Amino acid sequence: MTIEQILTAVKNGEMTPDDAANMIKNDMQVLGYNDMGYARLDSDRKSRTGFAEVVFCSGKSDEQLLNIYRQILDKEGEVLGTRATKQQYDYLCREFEELFFDEQSGILKIEKKDKELIGNVVVCSAGTADIPVAEEAAQTAEFFGTKVNRIYDVGVSGIHRLLSKSDELQLANCVIAVAGMEGALPSVIGGLVRNPVIAVPTSVGYGANFEGLSALLTMINSCANGIAVVNINNGYGAGYLATQMNRLALGIK
Amino acid sequence: MTIEQILTAVKNGEMTPDDAANMIKNDMQVLGYNDMGYARLDSDRKSRTGFAEVVFCSGKSDEQLLNIYRQILDKEGEVLGTRATKQQYDYLCREFEELFFDEQSGILKIEKKDKELIGNVVVCSAGTADIPVAEEAAQTAEFFGTKVNRIYDVGVSGIHRLLSKSDELQLANCVIAVAGMEGALPSVIGGLVRNPVIAVPTSVGYGANFEGLSALLTMINSCANGIAVVNINNGYGAGYLATQMNRLALGIK
Amino acid sequence: MTIEQILTAVKNGEMTPDDAANMIKNDMQVLGYNDMGYARLDSDRKSRTGFAEVVFCSGKSDEQLLNIYRQILDKEGEVLGTRATKQQYDYLCREFEELFFDEQSGILKIEKKDKELIGNVVVCSAGTADIPVAEEAAQTAEFFGTKVNRIYDVGVSGIHRLLSKSDELQLANCVIAVAGMEGALPSVIGGLVRNPVIAVPTSVGYGANFEGLSALLTMINSCANGIAVVNINNGYGAGYLATQMNRLALGIK
Amino acid sequence: MTIEQILTAVKNGEMTPDDAANMIKNDMQVLGYNDMGYARLDSDRKSRTGFAEVVFCSGKSDEQLLNIYRQILDKEGEVLGTRATKQQYDYLCREFEELFFDEQSGILKIEKKDKELIGNVVVCSAGTADIPVAEEAAQTAEFFGTKVNRIYDVGVSGIHRLLSKSDELQLANCVIAVAGMEGALPSVIGGLVRNPVIAVPTSVGYGANFEGLSALLTMINSCANGIAVVNINNGYGAGYLATQMNRLALGIK
Amino acid sequence: MTIEQILTAVKNGEMTPDDAANMIKNDMQVLGYNDMGYARLDSDRKSRTGFAEVVFCSGKSDEQLLNIYRQILDKEGEVLGTRATKQQYDYLCREFEELFFDEQSGILKIEKKDKELIGNVVVCSAGTADIPVAEEAAQTAEFFGTKVNRIYDVGVSGIHRLLSKSDELQLANCVIAVAGMEGALPSVIGGLVRNPVIAVPTSVGYGANFEGLSALLTMINSCANGIAVVNINNGYGAGYLATQMNRLALGIK
Amino acid sequence: MTIEQILTAVKNGEMTPDDAANMIKNDMQVLGYNDMGYARLDSDRKSRTGFAEVVFCSGKSDEQLLNIYRQILDKEGEVLGTRATKQQYDYLCREFEELFFDEQSGILKIEKKDKELIGNVVVCSAGTADIPVAEEAAQTAEFFGTKVNRIYDVGVSGIHRLLSKSDELQLANCVIAVAGMEGALPSVIGGLVRNPVIAVPTSVGYGANFEGLSALLTMINSCANGIAVVNINNGYGAGYLATQMNRLALGIK
Amino acid sequence: MTIEQILTAVKNGEMTPDDAANMIKNDMQVLGYNDMGYARLDSDRKSRTGFAEVVFCSGKSDEQLLNIYRQILDKEGEVLGTRATKQQYDYLCREFEELFFDEQSGILKIEKKDKELIGNVVVCSAGTADIPVAEEAAQTAEFFGTKVNRIYDVGVSGIHRLLSKSDELQLANCVIAVAGMEGALPSVIGGLVRNPVIAVPTSVGYGANFEGLSALLTMINSCANGIAVVNINNGYGAGYLATQMNRLALGIK
Amino acid sequence: MTIEQILTAVKNGEMTPDDAANMIKNDMQVLGYNDMGYARLDSDRKSRTGFAEVVFCSGKSDEQLLNIYRQILDKEGEVLGTRATKQQYDYLCREFEELFFDEQSGILKIEKKDKELIGNVVVCSAGTADIPVAEEAAQTAEFFGTKVNRIYDVGVSGIHRLLSKSDELQLANCVIAVAGMEGALPSVIGGLVRNPVIAVPTSVGYGANFEGLSALLTMINSCANGIAVVNINNGYGAGYLATQMNRLALGIK
Repeated sequence: MTIEQILTAVKNGEMTPDDAANMIKNDMQVLGYNDMGYARLDSDRKSRTGFAEVVFCSGKSDEQLLNIYRQILDKEGEVLGTRATKQQYDYLCREFEELFFDEQSGILKIEKKDKELIGNVVVCSAGTADIPVAEEAAQTAEFFGTKVNRIYDVGVSGIHRLLSKSDELQLANCVIAVAGMEGALPSVIGGLVRNPVIAVPTSVGYGANFEGLSALLTMINSCANGIAVVNINNGYGAGYLATQMNRLALGIK
Repeated sequence: MTIEQILTAVKNGEMTPDDAANMIKNDMQVLGYNDMGYARLDSDRKSRTGFAEVVFCSGKSDEQLLNIYRQILDKEGEVLGTRATKQQYDYLCREFEELFFDEQSGILKIEKKDKELIGNVVVCSAGTADIPVAEEAAQTAEFFGTKVNRIYDVGVSGIHRLLSKSDELQLANCVIAVAGMEGALPSVIGGLVRNPVIAVPTSVGYGANFEGLSALLTMINSCANGIAVVNINNGYGAGYLATQMNRLALGIK
Repeated sequence: MTIEQILTAVKNGEMTPDDAANMIKNDMQVLGYNDMGYARLDSDRKSRTGFAEVVFCSGKSDEQLLNIYRQILDKEGEVLGTRATKQQYDYLCREFEELFFDEQSGILKIEKKDKELIGNVVVCSAGTADIPVAEEAAQTAEFFGTKVNRIYDVGVSGIHRLLSKSDELQLANCVIAVAGMEGALPSVIGGLVRNPVIAVPTSVGYGANFEGLSALLTMINSCANGIAVVNINNGYGAGYLATQMNRLALGIK
Repeated sequence: MTIEQILTAVKNGEMTPDDAANMIKNDMQVLGYNDMGYARLDSDRKSRTGFAEVVFCSGKSDEQLLNIYRQILDKEGEVLGTRATKQQYDYLCREFEELFFDEQSGILKIEKKDKELIGNVVVCSAGTADIPVAEEAAQTAEFFGTKVNRIYDVGVSGIHRLLSKSDELQLANCVIAVAGMEGALPSVIGGLVRNPVIAVPTSVGYGANFEGLSALLTMINSCANGIAVVNINNGYGAGYLATQMNRLALGIK
Repeated sequence: MTIEQILTAVKNGEMTPDDAANMIKNDMQVLGYNDMGYARLDSDRKSRTGFAEVVFCSGKSDEQLLNIYRQILDKEGEVLGTRATKQQYDYLCREFEELFFDEQSGILKIEKKDKELIGNVVVCSAGTADIPVAEEAAQTAEFFGTKVNRIYDVGVSGIHRLLSKSDELQLANCVIAVAGMEGALPSVIGGLVRNPVIAVPTSVGYGANFEGLSALLTMINSCANGIAVVNINNGYGAGYLATQMNRLALGIK
Repeated sequence: MTIEQILTAVKNGEMTPDDAANMIKNDMQVLGYNDMGYARLDSDRKSRTGFAEVVFCSGKSDEQLLNIYRQILDKEGEVLGTRATKQQYDYLCREFEELFFDEQSGILKIEKKDKELIGNVVVCSAGTADIPVAEEAAQTAEFFGTKVNRIYDVGVSGIHRLLSKSDELQLANCVIAVAGMEGALPSVIGGLVRNPVIAVPTSVGYGANFEGLSALLTMINSCANGIAVVNINNGYGAGYLATQMNRLALGIK
Repeated sequence: MTIEQILTAVKNGEMTPDDAANMIKNDMQVLGYNDMGYARLDSDRKSRTGFAEVVFCSGKSDEQLLNIYRQILDKEGEVLGTRATKQQYDYLCREFEELFFDEQSGILKIEKKDKELIGNVVVCSAGTADIPVAEEAAQTAEFFGTKVNRIYDVGVSGIHRLLSKSDELQLANCVIAVAGMEGALPSVIGGLVRNPVIAVPTSVGYGANFEGLSALLTMINSCANGIAVVNINNGYGAGYLATQMNRLALGIK
Repeated sequence: MTIEQILTAVKNGEMTPDDAANMIKNDMQVLGYNDMGYARLDSDRKSRTGFAEVVFCSGKSDEQLLNIYRQILDKEGEVLGTRATKQQYDYLCREFEELFFDEQSGILKIEKKDKELIGNVVVCSAGTADIPVAEEAAQTAEFFGTKVNRIYDVGVSGIHRLLSKSDELQLANCVIAVAGMEGALPSVIGGLVRNPVIAVPTSVGYGANFEGLSALLTMINSCANGIAVVNINNGYGAGYLATQMNRLALGIK
């Protein structure tokens, strides 16, 4: 029973207030989710957060993935997956003709046609090795309708490459800065712009980078202001956060 | 010489293009800063970022602090300091009548009167011990003109306290979630709202909290989307970032 | 309005089901808590968990502490605080005659008279330096009505001291094992008993004990079965958990 | 000689008290174990702890595993193994017809038929990726006779999924909460229930989860009460501990 | 009852073998220790290990310390304490005339007169700042009867200072090498001698020495053979271990 | 437009000073780089730093590598790559006849003929397992024109092997000391020489070497003076730094 | 020239004292080592330390290994290698008939016949999974002539298995205690014996054992006395150290 | 006997070559040091390294410090101490009139008059809070005769402040870059200059800076070339290393 049905029953005298109170308290969150046995798809999510559910493909079996893609596609008309493998793509593309896969970033998606991209988010990478994470960020933001401007390979050890782009940086609603090794890029960008910088540490590097810990600590300790940090290699999270900010700037609710 | 003066000299034939090119390249960044000997106040900062310089009081001598407050006050008509001590307040309030000090958060400021606060940022704290950091965030945002709604002591181990406020959370342009110990608050809020959540780990707790590392890792690894993490106890950084997002939402550039 | 009042209003036709649904959804968790401004006392806690709220005294101002003690005492007729200082005791004992303070463990409490202690929980400590934490555990359990048997200074480097007590250990509903340095005590006890062992690492030791990390890792990695680990120095948490287990064994709900 | 035989010999004058004292002191722990050369099976374990020995299959050779399974099966009529591989299953199922293998959790067992499951333990998982560990916990508890109620994919970022199950949680003798990434699930459950929560961190996640360290620290630092933490991915340990608590609640000794 | 008394009672028919077996099993380790309430002095220790109990003074109250010193002095005729403070010395020396205190190392002892020191242990320190730990080692060994040869300030960055002592090093039954900062001393000594080197890391240094972790890791990873490592600053442990080795070399059991 | 062209336009009255100022400020760093889409080759680097760009081959696709080698070779007449694989060599040597590959160090290069090596840099390794990193250092320095003297397998646990080479060490403009495990070699060398020692920790070792962290901490905490530390296994960085120092000594600018 | 030849030349007037002093100072350590190009075999080692060089096989090429084995075999008549693989064994056994390989421990050796083993060292392992490391220790000690008594699978969670062996432990000149997971075994043994305990942490375990760090910290922080710790999985180092102690006890120099 | 005396004795037939060989081998390193009991002053250091001994004042007693200053002053005519306290200064300035103390950096020295400073080293600091460490570096270099150019408060979050100084940076023989928090300064400078950059991490910052670890990791992982890292807060070490490089550039041996 939905809460509206319970209340109608109370109104109609078919249920006592006490029984109804009991039922509501116990089922208090009779809110939407869809029980698939092994997963509870959060079907209420889009109305609550403005974003449909996204699939983290890594570690899912081909069969599970197929079912989840089918279900989201049915409901939303499109579906975004991250950290997919070539093998998962090969399996799913037998069923979905429009399936798109970007091997570098691991993005695996079916997207509505003629989607209009709006606003302005800049995605920077420090080195070429950081591009896979930067692309995960950029393509996630684009899937959610954000217009993205890519500026890659502008690490701080050749600072003029970055500075020549400062105008573009200053026009963005927010900047995603992706960097491994010492991860200093967000600090420099943070000093150049007015809007927030989303800092994405990557595991690029070796030795005492400790799989990205070095870049993470750098970004968390940034002396610049307006730096929002996400997890190591979490391009998806950065693209999501950037979309939220872009929507704020565009007045989308 | 400013770049405009150099160019006028070139135009007037008082300087050759080569000499000018040389001078510009060497002084290429003849941009504003104010050399005080021990500190280069970044006087260009406000036009570049939209925020005047803020003073990190901790560790500065009384004399240094006084000079810096004087200089910023002259230029901006107001001044914000963080991590100040009662002793620093006592020293400075001899000179500045309108000086305000909040011992709990360490905020030490002189503020323009009748400042209008606009927009909507919610600041949540998990426990009462997290309030000093939450207040640093809230008062920083307010200093920068942001309207703040405080919701304190709504930690996840008594989840109904938080859920009863979900409407207020959903209306905010962004939510600052301040939490120590296990730091789970941002993950729960992230699942309830549409706009970004700024996660502030605190050093509250003991033992294996490792001075806030536990809460930091929790927030960085959040399974919720739209979580922007700042440094441990960095209320100031959260207030700054929240102001940026609030301004985005209000269309302020 | 409580949910019962809302439902009665619906029944009486004073409110439409739609308005009521709206109100309930928004105030969905109109559950009990008591807003004190700086703290939301979780007044519903006892009915939900079987335990009244306990006060973590560390870092609270004298004034705050006094108010919280007053309020809980009014409601419950008794109050338990942990990590209190001698100074806090001195301040509060002006008002509360029956106040009891144990400097070693930091327990500061007012307890109902003639409380009957039931069941059987054993609290062991490895060394004498671990006794403050062990006492926090023991006195917490006792406050909640648990009968406690203390066996102190039975560390593994003189194993016969522990083994001579194996009968007492085997009779307990659960055993709390408190140890610093290498923290091996729970592993040995875990091999001797049938019921759960609650392992409490302490920060006792020096050098590579890293403030208790060493003992924590030992206990988390125990090769014995039935080991439940809590935070470093968290005697309170162990006493709470032991009380839950003791109540299970006694059939108390 | 058993201690009884020695004492009878003393009584009968066949041995002097001094010789007997010597023999007893040296053989002081003539307690049960079974020397297999490479392993001392702890044959006394069941009478001492109420649990037969369980086999940690990982890293054991096929031959060793076969012998250990044979020996335990002979003695107990059933046998439980954890962390087994498909290959180990293939090898052993040539000999044991009734062998059951669950690839997801790595449980490899031969179980007595018509085992009655009693009591009530709830096993929750935060995400679908945590299910393998949750199943290790659930199936371990079931092997030891515990009735288990599974509630999966109820992570804190969609809190309504968990809250709708609060009645079931409150009825359990204890709750096992399995979570990776930020590991916040046990804290929320801890605030909802009366009985202990066994917290199992998993290595699910990436980047700064540091193979489960993040979730472990979260759980150890939980602000909720009644949280018992076990090792990362240690589903077995959680199932064991839950069985102990369930038995306490049922009055089984 | 001692085990001998039980057996005599069996022999005399005053006790049945079953009762005796029961009593022995339960009191199975009726071995020596002395229950002082807050501490179980391990009175059997000397016969078991060849060393009387040593007092770790740090953190003990004056009153506790006095009692422990009295008791050990009564039994052994001498007493050794480590990590004592000047204040503890001042308190105890009112009662014990012969009390000796070395402020640098924190050794606080009453020693039998005319103790003969035998064998040969060399104690080296890398720098002068490591001497307090080196002295704790040396004086511990001397208290236990070991003859000690001190060679201080022979760190590896001036390697000739050490090499000029290689003869003395080669004659020792074992060498204690005490070093902070990078802790390389034991590796170099290990390559020069035939007998074991006991490596003691100290917390001397700053920055990335992480309170001695750096030196500890150096010593644990030594490429030299025959390196036995103890805890950071654990001069006592090194002196104890050196005494064991010296006694082995002297044929003392 | 280059800055010179802009200034000439100003001089010629083809551009106003204001427009020019604007353009220069925005394009302020119209400095050299070459946009390849996926990589911005830093073509200005050699004039700025004295070193041509070096290729970090690890993780680059064969196709990408080929293009980068072509481009640098065209410009510089030679090219140096590090961390290359045999497979990358096999792919590239189809196109470049003069390609040289050293499997041990992963150096993959095309070098100008008859390059004269000048100056004096000594490269030491502690063990044979450190040689691959030492060779990366040595061959990098040689590529940049530095004369290198190799002294391998002179670890501190057999100190005479090193000391017999002290003359050679003292003659070097700088010494590169490569060591894994406890990493003590630079400290000893630092005490023997007048010029800087570049310390390269390696991941050689096992257990508590933590992939080179142990050696890194040792070197950072060295009690010797004049120790310059680079990243774990960073032979390339050491070779580069050594070349800078060698050039300083030779008066090369 | 050897130092003796130089001195004879001085005596014979063939060299001036000044030239000789110079030569000796520069070649000051004209001590024995054998330059093989890629390795300096420390040929003087046996006379200096009493132990011939041992080969760490891991990571060496087949060809290198063959040469090193040949050379040591020639000089010593036997050779010991550790961490060897089956493949290395297969390669070398074509040349060396008497080659012995133990796959479990990775020991690869050619041993003199009829070697007499003397003294008494006990090697304990906590679990069966620790046996490979225990065997590396035991076989290393045996190669160096030490008589070894193996006591395996006596971990602390079934303490009676260990206690029943206390006599054997007390008779040993030293005890090697090998343990992974929580690594508590050495602490318990240390309380039972008179002679040193060599503690070997292993990487056995999972989750928060952090590849052996947990066991290492346990052992370093042991509350027992006389505990000498070596690196994680360093069975070889333990066998070496035990041999040194055994030789001390036997009066071998 | 010196080695020359021994050799003369051999020549004169007063000593046999064998006896002499023996004596030399045993006293092999009859090299200079001065035994003060608690410290072996390395009197040979200056001729070996070109630098007189420097005093690390921290932790030394007033009396010890006085003696060491006296001795070095006698020998060298000047003396440099680091990490001194005001109290140490007060004590020593009773004896030494010319004593100079800089409270900010902790430098305590007596310096030869009219020392000429030569060469060119730039010392940069990222923030004002890093100046104490920068001054330790600068004053150390100056004591050793190096001419220093200070450029302070040029952190990367206001990059134009640094870029405006790029000419000065490019002229230096080496640059010392001192930075706390995220420590990105050396990476940016490294991309601008031709000569080495000495990177000094500081403990400035809070939270996840972990007392300087964050800045240390940043610098070790720098993507720029030519970065030489020293310990956290090790201004002295940087000044020493910079002096070595400056001397190389000046051709001083």
